[in-house]
Amino acid sequence: MSADLPGRTLAELIGLLRAGTVSASELASACLDAVAAREDDLRAWAHLDPDAAMARARELDAVPAGERGPLHGIPVGIKDIIDTADLPTEYGSPIYAGHHPAEDADVVARLRRAGAIILGKTVTTEFALFHPGATTNPHDPARTPGGSSSGSAAAVGAGTVPLALGTQTAGSIVRPASYCGVVGVKPTFGRVSTRGVKACSRSLDTIGTFTRDVDGADAVLRVLGGVDANDPEPAAGALAAGRALRVGFARTPEWHEVPADSRGRIEQAVQKVAAGFGVRDVELPEAFSGLVEAQKCLMLVEVTRELADERAHHGDQLSTRLQDVLAHGDRMTWAYEAAKAHVRHCRGLLDDVFGDVDVLLAPSVLGEAPPIDEGTGDPVLCRAWTALGTPAVAVPGLTGPAGLPLGVQVVAAPGRDDLALEGARQLGRSLRDREHLSSHVAR
Amino acid sequence: MSADLPGRTLAELIGLLRAGTVSASELASACLDAVAAREDDLRAWAHLDPDAAMARARELDAVPAGERGPLHGIPVGIKDIIDTADLPTEYGSPIYAGHHPAEDADVVARLRRAGAIILGKTVTTEFALFHPGATTNPHDPARTPGGSSSGSAAAVGAGTVPLALGTQTAGSIVRPASYCGVVGVKPTFGRVSTRGVKACSRSLDTIGTFTRDVDGADAVLRVLGGVDANDPEPAAGALAAGRALRVGFARTPEWHEVPADSRGRIEQAVQKVAAGFGVRDVELPEAFSGLVEAQKCLMLVEVTRELADERAHHGDQLSTRLQDVLAHGDRMTWAYEAAKAHVRHCRGLLDDVFGDVDVLLAPSVLGEAPPIDEGTGDPVLCRAWTALGTPAVAVPGLTGPAGLPLGVQVVAAPGRDDLALEGARQLGRSLRDREHLSSHVAR
Repeated sequence: MSADLPGRTLAELIGLLRAGTVSASELASACLDAVAAREDDLRAWAHLDPDAAMARARELDAVPAGERGPLHGIPVGIKDIIDTADLPTEYGSPIYAGHHPAEDADVVARLRRAGAIILGKTVTTEFALFHPGATTNPHDPARTPGGSSSGSAAAVGAGTVPLALGTQTAGSIVRPASYCGVVGVKPTFGRVSTRGVKACSRSLDTIGTFTRDVDGADAVLRVLGGVDANDPEPAAGALAAGRALRVGFARTPEWHEVPADSRGRIEQAVQKVAAGFGVRDVELPEAFSGLVEAQKCLMLVEVTRELADERAHHGDQLSTRLQDVLAHGDRMTWAYEAAKAHVRHCRGLLDDVFGDVDVLLAPSVLGEAPPIDEGTGDPVLCRAWTALGTPAVAVPGLTGPAGLPLGVQVVAAPGRDDLALEGARQLGRSLRDREHLSSHVAR
Repeated sequence: MSADLPGRTLAELIGLLRAGTVSASELASACLDAVAAREDDLRAWAHLDPDAAMARARELDAVPAGERGPLHGIPVGIKDIIDTADLPTEYGSPIYAGHHPAEDADVVARLRRAGAIILGKTVTTEFALFHPGATTNPHDPARTPGGSSSGSAAAVGAGTVPLALGTQTAGSIVRPASYCGVVGVKPTFGRVSTRGVKACSRSLDTIGTFTRDVDGADAVLRVLGGVDANDPEPAAGALAAGRALRVGFARTPEWHEVPADSRGRIEQAVQKVAAGFGVRDVELPEAFSGLVEAQKCLMLVEVTRELADERAHHGDQLSTRLQDVLAHGDRMTWAYEAAKAHVRHCRGLLDDVFGDVDVLLAPSVLGEAPPIDEGTGDPVLCRAWTALGTPAVAVPGLTGPAGLPLGVQVVAAPGRDDLALEGARQLGRSLRDREHLSSHVAR
């Protein structure tokens, strides 16, 4: 049984551990074995401490059943942009080689208190931007896993851990989740504290999860969330009993940038899903076509401020790509207030957008993962939702022309993470059924 | 004598025609022969009407000496974005195939009144933007002549006509002039009327000249200019007798984008020039680093408005490149007012910039002309000056590593076209002397 444990969904594993069918040590050991078996190719981990992880697992096994946390014994990978007191945190940059933060980030502390085992740190691109780490795509080592949460997506996609944390400023959760064929959840902006995360862009940075199941992500978000006193309280149940989910399909203003073949596959999937949900086409407000550039501007200008010290004192240790990003930030300062104003204006239009639908289905990536030497892929389809602060969930189930994962995302109104998760749950199931059907037809 | 006439400078030809040494017919005929000899390779012309040109030349030859205009008998190429009543004007777009404007543009009418002969229309990129025409570089047919005034720069660079008109919205005069090794003058914004020019961006579009000499350009600008009653009156003489030109060297915020080899050549040239002029380094205000993106924003948003009809009714006849430009325009609308404000702010800093110098020497192109299949080159080094509305003169004389022309530009304060021309005259002479010296040393 041990060998196939790391490939189980997070919700299953939570159940098995709770029932005592599997011990924390058994699961941790199985995950470490799975990691070791794939790591030469996958290169998903920046730091691993197997001994510490096993010691922690044995401690957890000794905790009486009544005192166990909601994530008791769950091994988790933490993106190396998030501080851990017991493991190095290098932010994907040689400037921070061997850096040991004094404290755990808020989310790490919460995971530990909930009984999770921090297995190690996963590879991030340089400062969670564009210069890639060494991680490969679990479905094809010649392709990128996406970024910036490269290692987290790849580790979960490879079935070596059931859970990893990532962050999204442009498309760093939804994009790699789509490329790696896993569930990636970016919650509502502000719902999860970013204390102890190396800031990229304070008006955009959002911590989220990689799992293979929506139920598992839901359990983790209950542990991570609730920090912002101003967050709207999620409804007890996402939908009144018996009410059907109202689903819209938003092609988004960047739809024409999706290759025709992928567009066809997404349209086809939506049609099939529509049989069950009555999906309606949703035309987004014209103003939304400005969100991609406004998001870029916010991100560029803010990251240029955040990395001012690194640039001034360690400029030679920044990648050329990052130096270009920061120079671009200098060049966009004049547009910063206008970008903020435009994003605010668009946020004000969200009530209308979600007036008749609970969730939107939208494309998440411009086709399958690109070749690894071309970078980490384009976040263009995620930028607007990140700027708007909506929850967004990458839902796997579609495949592209090369047989690799092709994403869609489920988006809900800010604060309605419950609906986004429920939508991802129901639509993910429907997409899987459909894929299954197609395979039958194809044979 | 006839055969080498088209290669003479404009000022020389003006003198020869005035003295009666050469007739208008003789020169027109020689230019048409030169055009015919090069056109198979160069493809600089969109429309030619040799018979009409020769008929006009004969008319001019019959004008009594005392009644001749300042450009009597001078053959000129007109960029095909500028209206001519007697020749088709197609704006580089199939949408306007065979289009015959009802009237001459203001500049064309002025040239005719001054005695010039409109030899034909020169190739422009599509609507003076980025999709190239067929024109090649006169110094290497495998390279671009630059754009958007491709045909005008190439025709003058090839020595087939002494004068052609172009327009600049980003870098469409200075860039092709630098690539083709000719003098390109973009006057102060607003000095020359753009009536009868297909508008690209009304806050940036500027008509200017291609010649092989600064004196020739000066003569033409006296004919074209003076339309704007608000223009500051140029001083009778640019410099008080005996006062030396005060020259600054502005690397500009985009200096690092110039390839190292070209940077070296420019620095070396500046050092040599400095021996005669005491060139001082000028640090531009930090705010200027935002001008490139602000200029792009103004241009994108304005051209998207200008081409709204063509896009709505003939979208399938726009190049993919142009469709992308217009989509980008839609995405930048939110930043338009901020871009205008930033440009205004930077214009307000120009008094300081030109406080201690009459003119600035600045790079004009990112190295030699790129291969023709890579587009028309990057206007990045021209965008800021166009946004600021300063006069800018591309000065030939430097050569790059492949032996092809490498540009610099001479920039003056808005309204001081006289200083820009005087600077180009003096510095161009100095650069040529230096090149001559280098060749001697190299042998």
